[in-house]
Amino acid sequence: MLQTITWTGTAARLLDQTRLPSETAYVDVVDERQMWDAIKRLVVRGAPAIGVAAAFGVYLGIKDATPDQFATRLDAVCEHLKTSRPTAVNLFWAIDRVRDVALRTGTAQAVLDESLRMLEEDNAVCRAIGDHGFKLLQELGGGSGGKAGLDGETPPLNVLTHCNAGGLATVRYGTALSPIYVGAERGARFHVFADETRPLLQGSRITAYELKQNGIPVTVICDNMAATVMRDGKVDAVIVGTDRVAANGDVANKIGTLNVAILAKHFGVPFLVAAPTSSIDLSLATGDQIPIEQRDGREVSEGMGRITAPPDVGIYNPAFDVTPADLVTAIITERGVVRPPYTEGLRAVMT
Amino acid sequence: MLQTITWTGTAARLLDQTRLPSETAYVDVVDERQMWDAIKRLVVRGAPAIGVAAAFGVYLGIKDATPDQFATRLDAVCEHLKTSRPTAVNLFWAIDRVRDVALRTGTAQAVLDESLRMLEEDNAVCRAIGDHGFKLLQELGGGSGGKAGLDGETPPLNVLTHCNAGGLATVRYGTALSPIYVGAERGARFHVFADETRPLLQGSRITAYELKQNGIPVTVICDNMAATVMRDGKVDAVIVGTDRVAANGDVANKIGTLNVAILAKHFGVPFLVAAPTSSIDLSLATGDQIPIEQRDGREVSEGMGRITAPPDVGIYNPAFDVTPADLVTAIITERGVVRPPYTEGLRAVMT
Repeated sequence: MLQTITWTGTAARLLDQTRLPSETAYVDVVDERQMWDAIKRLVVRGAPAIGVAAAFGVYLGIKDATPDQFATRLDAVCEHLKTSRPTAVNLFWAIDRVRDVALRTGTAQAVLDESLRMLEEDNAVCRAIGDHGFKLLQELGGGSGGKAGLDGETPPLNVLTHCNAGGLATVRYGTALSPIYVGAERGARFHVFADETRPLLQGSRITAYELKQNGIPVTVICDNMAATVMRDGKVDAVIVGTDRVAANGDVANKIGTLNVAILAKHFGVPFLVAAPTSSIDLSLATGDQIPIEQRDGREVSEGMGRITAPPDVGIYNPAFDVTPADLVTAIITERGVVRPPYTEGLRAVMT
Repeated sequence: MLQTITWTGTAARLLDQTRLPSETAYVDVVDERQMWDAIKRLVVRGAPAIGVAAAFGVYLGIKDATPDQFATRLDAVCEHLKTSRPTAVNLFWAIDRVRDVALRTGTAQAVLDESLRMLEEDNAVCRAIGDHGFKLLQELGGGSGGKAGLDGETPPLNVLTHCNAGGLATVRYGTALSPIYVGAERGARFHVFADETRPLLQGSRITAYELKQNGIPVTVICDNMAATVMRDGKVDAVIVGTDRVAANGDVANKIGTLNVAILAKHFGVPFLVAAPTSSIDLSLATGDQIPIEQRDGREVSEGMGRITAPPDVGIYNPAFDVTPADLVTAIITERGVVRPPYTEGLRAVMT
C-alpha cells in the first residue's frame, strides 16, 4: 500500500501526488520551506495529511535552533507554515498542537515525537471512522436492502465520492473511503463512482488509483455526470471528506461538493461527511466564516497539458465550497456518527 | 466573425472545432464519408450546425450518382449519415428534409439549393430566438431589476451557460447565446459564466472564445463551481441549447445540463432552453425515449494531453443527459417563448 507520509529519520518522505497516476515518486522534505512549498503545490494534500505534514515541518524548522533562538524561531516557523493553505483547519490544529508541546518542553525532539504520535493516531482515527461509517452504510442500506453487499445475492453498495479523502489524503486508510475499506475487509462488496474533480482531478488521478490498487471496483465520471448516475438509481450514498466543519454543521470541502450535496438532496440520496474531530472548528459559528482558498486560474486553463481556454478570459478558481448543514445527512467522526441538529451533536462529540 | 460552415462552390468548409482555441483551422469536406467523420469527431458540432452540415453531406454523397443509382444512393447516404450521432434530432430532421427534396425533384442540385436555404434560415431562426430570448431576460430581470443591464447604473445581467450553443453551434448567431448577442447590439450589458463542460471543454474552448471575440465579458468556471456562483447570487439566469426536446418538454442537452438545472431550481434561478423548432421532436412522448450517445472513455482520461486516470478503471462517458420538463422555466423558439404546460405549448408552436 502506498505511504502518503513516512519519517525517514532525517526527512519527511512524501508521495508526490501531483505526479499520480503516471508516476509514483517520493520527495524527501528536509526543511520547513520545502514543506511549505509541498503543501502549497499539493505534493501532499488532504486535510488530515497536511496536518501531519505541517507538524513535521515545524520540527524541521526548529531542530537546528539554538536555545536562544528557539521561541522566536518556533513562532516564525508556525506562522509561516500556517500561510501555506487557508481552508483546512487540520493544518492550524496540528501546528498549534506541536507548538504547545514545543513551548512546554523547550525541545525539538518532543515536537518530532508528537508528530510521530499524530502519524499513528491518524491511522486509529481513520479506522474508527471506517467502523462507524460502515455501520451507518449498513443501516442506510440503499440498493442492497440494508445488507451493504454482504449478501452475495444482492448488488454491491454504490457509493459516489468527490475529490480524494482516501488513504492518500491521510496517513493510510482515509476518511471518506475508510468505511469502504473496512467494509471490504469484512466481505462487503462496493462499487464507487469517483467524480474526477476538476480542476486538479484528485478523483480520477488519486481516488480511482487507490481504489483500484485496493481491489475496489471504481468508475470515473466527470463531475457533471453525477446527476445522471443518481437519476438512474446507481448511487446508494455519497461520502465525502471535509477540510473544516463549522459549529452549526456547515461543511467546507473541495469545490464541487456543494453541487453533489444539492443533487443528492434532489434525488433523495444520503449525503455523508467523514470528519475526524481535528477537522471540526467550533470557533466558527457557520460556514460563512470559513476562509476559501482562491487558486491560480491557470490550474483550470493549463492544468492538463493543453491550453483549454483562450488567453485573457476571466477564470474563477475557488478551491473549496461550503455545503450548508441542512444538506448533510450525517457527519461521521472517529467518536461516532453525528446527526442533526448539528450544533448540539458536534458540541457533544468535541467534549 | 468566425464562420462555422460555408459553401465554397465545391466543398463544405468547416471550422475545425476540435482545434479551438489554439488554432483556427478550416477543413474542406468534399464527400459524404468525410462529412460523417467530421460530425462524429465533432469537427462540426452543435445540433443546428450538424443538421446543416449533414444536408451538405447528402448533396456531396449523391452529386455524382447516375440517374439509375440516384434513389439507391440517396437512401444509402441518408442512412449512413444518420448513424454519425444519435441524440440531436436536427440531424434527422435536416437529412429527411433534403431527402424529400431529392425524391421530389430527382436532382442533386435541388438538394444543394435546399442546403443553402437551410444555411440562410438558420440565421433567421437564431436571430428570432435572440429577439424572444432577450425580451424574456428583460422580463425576468434578475440582478439588474428588469433592466437587463440597459441602464448604465445597474449591474450587467449575469447569465450562466453550459457547453456551446453559440454561433459556433449554428451557422452564425447561436441559440442560447443569441439573446446575449441581440441584447448587446441594443446596448445591454452582460457577463457570462461559461461552464467549461467536461470532457470536451466546449465551454472553455468554444463559448469563452466566441464571447471574447464578440466583446462579451466571460468567466470560465469548472462545471462543479456552478453551485457556488449561484449561491453567491452571481447568476440571474441560465440559458442552454438543446439537442432534442420531447413532446412533454423534457430536454436532452450536453452532459451536465441536468446538474445545472437542479442547481438552478435549488437556488431559484430561471432555467431557460433555446430551441429552434427543428430541435423539437413531438414523436417522442418523453425524454426517456431520446437515445443518449455514449462516447469513448478516453475522452475523459486522455482528452487533454495528459493521461488523467489510471489504466483499466471504468469510465462512464454519456455525451448528453435529459432534463425533465419540471425543471425548465421556459423554452425559447424562433416562433416565441413556450412556458409550462409544455405538452400544449409545444404542440401549438409546431402547428
